[in-house]
Amino acid sequence: MIVNDLYMKRACEIAFSRIGRTSPNPAVGAVIVKDGSIIGEGGTGACGCDHAEVTAIKDARARGCDTAGAEIFVSLEPCSHYGKTPPCTEAIINCGIRKVYTPLLDPNPIVSGSGIKKLVSAGIEVNIMHDHFRAASELIRNFKKYILRGQPFIINKCAITLDGKIASSSGDSKWISNEYTRLLVHKLRSKVDAVIIGSNTLMMDNPMLNVRIGDFNDDIKSVLTATSGMINGKDNFFLAELLKAEINDYNDPLRVLVGMPSDMLINCNFLRDDNYIIITNEKEFESATAANKNLRSFSDKLNIVKGQFSSHEESVHFAMDVLKKNGVMTALLEGGGTLNGSFFNVGAIDQFMYVVAPKVLGSGISPIRGRESEHMSDSLTLRDVSTVLIGDNLLFNGYKEEYNFEMM
Amino acid sequence: MIVNDLYMKRACEIAFSRIGRTSPNPAVGAVIVKDGSIIGEGGTGACGCDHAEVTAIKDARARGCDTAGAEIFVSLEPCSHYGKTPPCTEAIINCGIRKVYTPLLDPNPIVSGSGIKKLVSAGIEVNIMHDHFRAASELIRNFKKYILRGQPFIINKCAITLDGKIASSSGDSKWISNEYTRLLVHKLRSKVDAVIIGSNTLMMDNPMLNVRIGDFNDDIKSVLTATSGMINGKDNFFLAELLKAEINDYNDPLRVLVGMPSDMLINCNFLRDDNYIIITNEKEFESATAANKNLRSFSDKLNIVKGQFSSHEESVHFAMDVLKKNGVMTALLEGGGTLNGSFFNVGAIDQFMYVVAPKVLGSGISPIRGRESEHMSDSLTLRDVSTVLIGDNLLFNGYKEEYNFEMM
Repeated sequence: MIVNDLYMKRACEIAFSRIGRTSPNPAVGAVIVKDGSIIGEGGTGACGCDHAEVTAIKDARARGCDTAGAEIFVSLEPCSHYGKTPPCTEAIINCGIRKVYTPLLDPNPIVSGSGIKKLVSAGIEVNIMHDHFRAASELIRNFKKYILRGQPFIINKCAITLDGKIASSSGDSKWISNEYTRLLVHKLRSKVDAVIIGSNTLMMDNPMLNVRIGDFNDDIKSVLTATSGMINGKDNFFLAELLKAEINDYNDPLRVLVGMPSDMLINCNFLRDDNYIIITNEKEFESATAANKNLRSFSDKLNIVKGQFSSHEESVHFAMDVLKKNGVMTALLEGGGTLNGSFFNVGAIDQFMYVVAPKVLGSGISPIRGRESEHMSDSLTLRDVSTVLIGDNLLFNGYKEEYNFEMM
Repeated sequence: MIVNDLYMKRACEIAFSRIGRTSPNPAVGAVIVKDGSIIGEGGTGACGCDHAEVTAIKDARARGCDTAGAEIFVSLEPCSHYGKTPPCTEAIINCGIRKVYTPLLDPNPIVSGSGIKKLVSAGIEVNIMHDHFRAASELIRNFKKYILRGQPFIINKCAITLDGKIASSSGDSKWISNEYTRLLVHKLRSKVDAVIIGSNTLMMDNPMLNVRIGDFNDDIKSVLTATSGMINGKDNFFLAELLKAEINDYNDPLRVLVGMPSDMLINCNFLRDDNYIIITNEKEFESATAANKNLRSFSDKLNIVKGQFSSHEESVHFAMDVLKKNGVMTALLEGGGTLNGSFFNVGAIDQFMYVVAPKVLGSGISPIRGRESEHMSDSLTLRDVSTVLIGDNLLFNGYKEEYNFEMM
């Protein structure tokens, strides 16, 4: 690997570190190099704050370094339009940077290439680093779907037995996976904007749905880190970083409940603070509050979005819309079979991260209870498949579309 | 690896090559070395024929080599009793071999060690090669269960979607797996004595259940071979050889049908020659022959074993007994969910070889439809788990018991 590759890899690592904190902007990383040294680096800030390039330029200044004549490595084409912040191309031009390296054009076909055009017009040399295209693309799958399709990117995470069960018939699911893959789930939650569950999971598990990386000791962390070099199948920069990276800086995701069970307790973990939404319809809301006195007296304090829908599938469309309006670019679907099935039926699941445990249950609940298919050929074939054995749990990761999917 | 390790590895490879042709004897390999060269080698013959040691001694003689003063590497302790053939210890002593290397004592605790004792008494040096214990043990898991428990060793093979389905709701299962893993199944069939199916699979797939390695071209074979070095988890000599070995010498396994569907066709592939058994009970037989005129007129020509059982679980116990009486040491269970569930319920499945394909179906038939469990902790935890990615299919291999299981 030549030194420029290392700089770009570093930019991608910074980009990864920002995933989950930038929505609805893409997580980008930038590294400024002068005379063979990194003089500044930075990632995209929270929405409305500086983009990666500006963060890196400010970092260089804070270190007392002059960016005139420097080179910048950035994991995505610099933006050239006025949004909540001025265009990054302007900042790059103004600070005297003479060379820009990037692996990836803006995924939005309407603006793609315009940042580079602007830089070149200003006499700046632009290098497209094709070798990093794949890694950089994987870091913005979520943004790409959001910008091209106007919908959040949905990751369905499940722990299943070898015979494909997420819980016993009575609903017991503790524990299928091992402590390494449970840590992985917490790291994953730190990289999403929202976690979605349904009524059954709420009532069965009373889940916290927060990021609890601190609950895992260093031994567990280091075992997980060690697996990042052992990915089989497609290389996957996002997955490798997720396994490897130490994650200290994160928000708890928004908790999203699709449905409203009538036996919901007002002191359940889901309602413990304001960081949640309940997505339901009028009928479900009425029957829940009619049946449950506590819920009724509390109902005007709940964060509820009521939609007009009469089927599970319609509820998914409505939920996707609500999530988008709430700035959710990536959501982790941690539902049971019914909710997962509804998302699957409408083609809403983009990424499947399934942990297969070495257990055989012989009965129980399937991860996806979708509509019945006549033919095996009706199944969804996953793309860009990677697997990695984590202790005795196998992580199987695949996508609805290839990493270089385009507008459809 | 020192040279002795290579000789023992060769003996284990020979043993593997004989698996599926020796039942109910264990498949053993032997290599005779003199003055730094292999002068003879051989594996266990079919039942009643020479054991590995005698085959190797005869091979040396056929090559015109004198075994006096030679060393023999054998994958299992030489036998010391008169069975269908004279004891191998006697042959070794008589032919002047001065040193015996083996990694593994006879698994039968009643005779374990007596072969070595006899050799030592005759002044022969015996070396236990502990480093090969694991590999050698994996080659005789089947024999070990047969001799310790009096039952055939059952391998359950399935191809499943990522969401744990072996077929669509209507029963369509073509194709879940890729051509590499389908070749693997044919190689596996060459290593078992019998293949077991149930009525649903018979009627849905009209399967041949034979070994069709010849249907796969060299490209497919070489891709499969290449994966043998890429096993994750526990090293597994059996699995690595199964992936790697070229298999030219095999029998088609006995076809076993548990159940008797009334709409069975007398010209189905299952009944195409005499190499089959139907295991059923009187009631099922009566109703099938009452409903099906062709079957009735043909019924006295069928290979049927009728048992006294009234539940699926009892049918498994009866079938295991019939298999044992037919000299079946290893059987491949290729059932659907119902039959697999019956075998699972009674704890009869020893090895799970599941191919997980990168497909999501969203509904369909589970690989094991066993009895309902209250708790996840009721699940069977698999031992000695290995995984290997074969193209885009993941082979997940695990066992009910560890490789060094003992009498229970």
